[in-house]
Amino acid sequence: MINIRLEKLRHEMTKFNLDAVIIPSTDPHQSEYVAKHWKIREYFSGFTGSAGVLVLNKDEAALWTDSRYFLQFEDECKEYDINLHKQSIPHAPEHVQWLCDSLDEGAVIGLDFLQFSKAQMDYIIERSRPKNIELKNIPSLVDEIWTDRPALPSFPIDIHPLEFSGESTASKIQKVQDKITNSKADYYLFSSLDEIAWLFNIRSRDVDYTPLVTAYALVGPDNTRLFCDKSRFSTTAIDTFSKLHIEIIDYKLAIAELQKLDVNKKIITDVSSLNYAVFNAVESKFLFQNSIAKELKAIKNETEIAGAKNCMVKDGVALTKFFIWLESELATREISEFEIGKKLESFRKQQDYYVGESFAAIVGYKGNGAIIHYTAPEKGSAMVKNENILLVDSGAQYKDGTTDITRTVWLGGTPSTELKTAYSAVLKGYIMLEQLQFPKGTVGMQIDAFARFHLWQQGLNYPHGTGHGIGSFGMVHEPPQGFTTNPATSSGSTAHAPNQLTTIEPGCYKKGVYGIRIENIVLSQVKQVTEFGEFLGFTPLTLFPIDRQLIDKSLLTVSETAWFNSYHKMVYDQLSPMLNTDEKEWLKGMCNEL
Amino acid sequence: MINIRLEKLRHEMTKFNLDAVIIPSTDPHQSEYVAKHWKIREYFSGFTGSAGVLVLNKDEAALWTDSRYFLQFEDECKEYDINLHKQSIPHAPEHVQWLCDSLDEGAVIGLDFLQFSKAQMDYIIERSRPKNIELKNIPSLVDEIWTDRPALPSFPIDIHPLEFSGESTASKIQKVQDKITNSKADYYLFSSLDEIAWLFNIRSRDVDYTPLVTAYALVGPDNTRLFCDKSRFSTTAIDTFSKLHIEIIDYKLAIAELQKLDVNKKIITDVSSLNYAVFNAVESKFLFQNSIAKELKAIKNETEIAGAKNCMVKDGVALTKFFIWLESELATREISEFEIGKKLESFRKQQDYYVGESFAAIVGYKGNGAIIHYTAPEKGSAMVKNENILLVDSGAQYKDGTTDITRTVWLGGTPSTELKTAYSAVLKGYIMLEQLQFPKGTVGMQIDAFARFHLWQQGLNYPHGTGHGIGSFGMVHEPPQGFTTNPATSSGSTAHAPNQLTTIEPGCYKKGVYGIRIENIVLSQVKQVTEFGEFLGFTPLTLFPIDRQLIDKSLLTVSETAWFNSYHKMVYDQLSPMLNTDEKEWLKGMCNEL
Repeated sequence: MINIRLEKLRHEMTKFNLDAVIIPSTDPHQSEYVAKHWKIREYFSGFTGSAGVLVLNKDEAALWTDSRYFLQFEDECKEYDINLHKQSIPHAPEHVQWLCDSLDEGAVIGLDFLQFSKAQMDYIIERSRPKNIELKNIPSLVDEIWTDRPALPSFPIDIHPLEFSGESTASKIQKVQDKITNSKADYYLFSSLDEIAWLFNIRSRDVDYTPLVTAYALVGPDNTRLFCDKSRFSTTAIDTFSKLHIEIIDYKLAIAELQKLDVNKKIITDVSSLNYAVFNAVESKFLFQNSIAKELKAIKNETEIAGAKNCMVKDGVALTKFFIWLESELATREISEFEIGKKLESFRKQQDYYVGESFAAIVGYKGNGAIIHYTAPEKGSAMVKNENILLVDSGAQYKDGTTDITRTVWLGGTPSTELKTAYSAVLKGYIMLEQLQFPKGTVGMQIDAFARFHLWQQGLNYPHGTGHGIGSFGMVHEPPQGFTTNPATSSGSTAHAPNQLTTIEPGCYKKGVYGIRIENIVLSQVKQVTEFGEFLGFTPLTLFPIDRQLIDKSLLTVSETAWFNSYHKMVYDQLSPMLNTDEKEWLKGMCNEL
Repeated sequence: MINIRLEKLRHEMTKFNLDAVIIPSTDPHQSEYVAKHWKIREYFSGFTGSAGVLVLNKDEAALWTDSRYFLQFEDECKEYDINLHKQSIPHAPEHVQWLCDSLDEGAVIGLDFLQFSKAQMDYIIERSRPKNIELKNIPSLVDEIWTDRPALPSFPIDIHPLEFSGESTASKIQKVQDKITNSKADYYLFSSLDEIAWLFNIRSRDVDYTPLVTAYALVGPDNTRLFCDKSRFSTTAIDTFSKLHIEIIDYKLAIAELQKLDVNKKIITDVSSLNYAVFNAVESKFLFQNSIAKELKAIKNETEIAGAKNCMVKDGVALTKFFIWLESELATREISEFEIGKKLESFRKQQDYYVGESFAAIVGYKGNGAIIHYTAPEKGSAMVKNENILLVDSGAQYKDGTTDITRTVWLGGTPSTELKTAYSAVLKGYIMLEQLQFPKGTVGMQIDAFARFHLWQQGLNYPHGTGHGIGSFGMVHEPPQGFTTNPATSSGSTAHAPNQLTTIEPGCYKKGVYGIRIENIVLSQVKQVTEFGEFLGFTPLTLFPIDRQLIDKSLLTVSETAWFNSYHKMVYDQLSPMLNTDEKEWLKGMCNEL
């Protein structure tokens, strides 16, 4: 089927006189997860990983993705005429030079400008210039082939109430308008869906796992335009927005409306979130680069922090019930990874304000835990027994917050020394970040290295970042801050600030054998102020015991053991009031001093 | 006098219709240390620090420099009509926005394009565009005022022999020509003085402390042009170069010759090292950015590494004799910092192949040690007694290598707990980098953080990078690799590679009270190869005991103490054969187990 689609695509390429096409995995808003309408790369490749680019030239169909997805690609695409090209750096546009090298002078590449950011297009333009390669905007390329393409999302839009958001839309818009005035600009243009959800306190389910609304927004000094399907709002919402001078205009009219703006008007925007079609519409009016929402949104307010803490209790309770269930079931039968994931979901569903999972839960038994973004298939997933190692990475969207937690547990038998050494090094790395104090201005890339220290000392490492920002009933991966080795990403280059929510999740993976990852959400706070400035650090919010069967206690320092014990005391103190006697008993056993 | 010069400069500004001028501290080759001819900023400000920019607008003369130089500025410039503007990041062009903000629409800034890199000019152009500010190339601005300006250097040029360089000029040029051929280019343009010294195996003394030659070079497929004063070469050298198809052309003709190149020719170059005048001359022929010499030169060959090791023995012997002298003299008298620096130089002078100091030795007693780039004045420097703390940072140029070492010693009395804690944290940071193993691809900014870990944990820090690459009878600060918190520098963003020479030099400073710094040169090497890739680490080359009177032993781990003892065993084993009985005895005491 995929091969037939590719054949049709080649036919269209001939029709449009194209020598190549680039099909990325993005939507017009540079979103991480995209609505079904935009899953063009998946449609033509069968590859479902969240990162990857499909490139067709005369000779081959090439899928470029990074090490997190190599195993998944082999699994999903082995029967199709698609070659895997391994990226050495996640999201790096390594395919561009390769494609340009493969093309003749004056060749034509077809692409949909809506799916490319300004920076991505600049990069392609630079690489294609020496051979005078033309870049042609072909938004309709797939329409003839993908006849049953899903429409743009049209789910009802909910207003995210003040009790969860902690700040009114009026107040947020005022902050944006102050920025416009201070910058002597006329407009602030928003294109990132999470920024728009934050600004208007709106939520929907356009995108899997993420409560976002497909929209653009233009804030002016006196009024605001929200480009979004009006029929999705309740009349109450339309009325409330109208009083705030917010006009709702059809999503598809956004680019035309932007083009119509007075030539003398000046726009501030976060260019990195704009697609190239929108960028072209506003380029002449662009004043300077700014990501006000990232600046403001990343700093959580008291209500959002309280909500996050509340969610951690709910997640901890759900996980306690889940692991008790798992332990007792495994004593009598084998259970598929898929069933385990569904059961975990059912325990979270019982919690207040539950909306859905924040991403597809990763339940990876033994070697499957080494597939970084593994999803257990409904049919034929591995059967888990009461032995060996299981990795469970999961999270939820609650109306008062978003969660993301990973635990790696030993289910029975005797773990190898190699495994215990690796697990202990991962844990020591996690604790190192918890204990770390760093001066204001320290960026994600610097902090990331500490989580790897103990692994590096033994020649071990992990092929992913050490953590990411997380939203408040928003995106599970929320920029700008995080921890990664890649300086070209916002999570590598952004300085951490107080009152941000970030995950810490070091790991270690052995292909076909095991996956280890330990992940908590932490709150950044000022820890000390000296003549050398403000020093920040992290406080763990996630509440669930870390498996101790895989720890080689002799490898922990006194200080690490003390941290471990104090964390588990906190977990027990905070979760136990919500549990029944049996559950308390079980948790007590998991939270004893090491 | 400075005020009169500034007044004359304002007069010239009026003559040229300038609203502002920017006077940086660079030469046309982006060199760190510059020939006297280029010390324009020093001439007009009296400020002798190596980093700083003088900016004049209608209202004020503003000197921008970073925290390393704040105290020095106060000291040198307090009587002049110059305001200090504090840069938060060293070398950051924070003055540009400030200047543009202070100017009216359509104002004119005068600057000498020879003193600005392409990137610096791009930055100024971008900031000046909103107000239509004009940037005017005024190379002759200072000539009317600075009538006794020193000429361009014309010292004789020495050929650096194969026994020290380890690779012939022919072989190096062949590597460059291979790169040109592989890149389908026609020329490789060199502008960095250290790269030119490396490529041609030439040395002179155009610049203080650095054996460089003022020149440009253009390598073509069959011949090479070296833009440099011919009279500086011996006839033998001219003859040898001629056989290698190297033509020597007058330095001042370089830009004109570059402009004359056939329009269809393509040039590869390291744009970051070009000044804007040269860049303009070759822009249309520029093919792509490459720093071949940095790539090749930074990896030292066996001869260069052997030379470096040999220099460490010589430096260690000189320092042993020096500290024995210091100890014995202080028992009977007070000695000025200046005299101490001169005496240290005299011990190094006794060593084989000694050429000169590699930078002005820093001898900082008590609070003077907190002035990061302190130079003790000939008259009135502090008198050192046999008590309290002394920082000595010094190095030499030997024909077989370049050295740079810092030791902080306690001269007598009882050190405070605060001081011992800080010193121990600095030492622990140093040892952490020595013990660190990191995967190939890890950059300076990531490694830098580890050196600060133990300081950060106590709310301490230091306002400089943790180390820099070092040349082979070349620049004491040699790019590209190093350790710093600044991602915008090559030493922050460059991955370390095997066989590089780099310093590790964490510190801690308390204004007016003490300066602590411990610095060794280390060699990077592959330490382990696993399924996760190659892991690198550092091996110390510098040979001299680290003062132990300031160590709080209880703060060192078993592993840190073991490292300390094994380092001192190596120091004793390698230095003692070169010492007499008394010196051996003294060194033995300094190298005992902790």
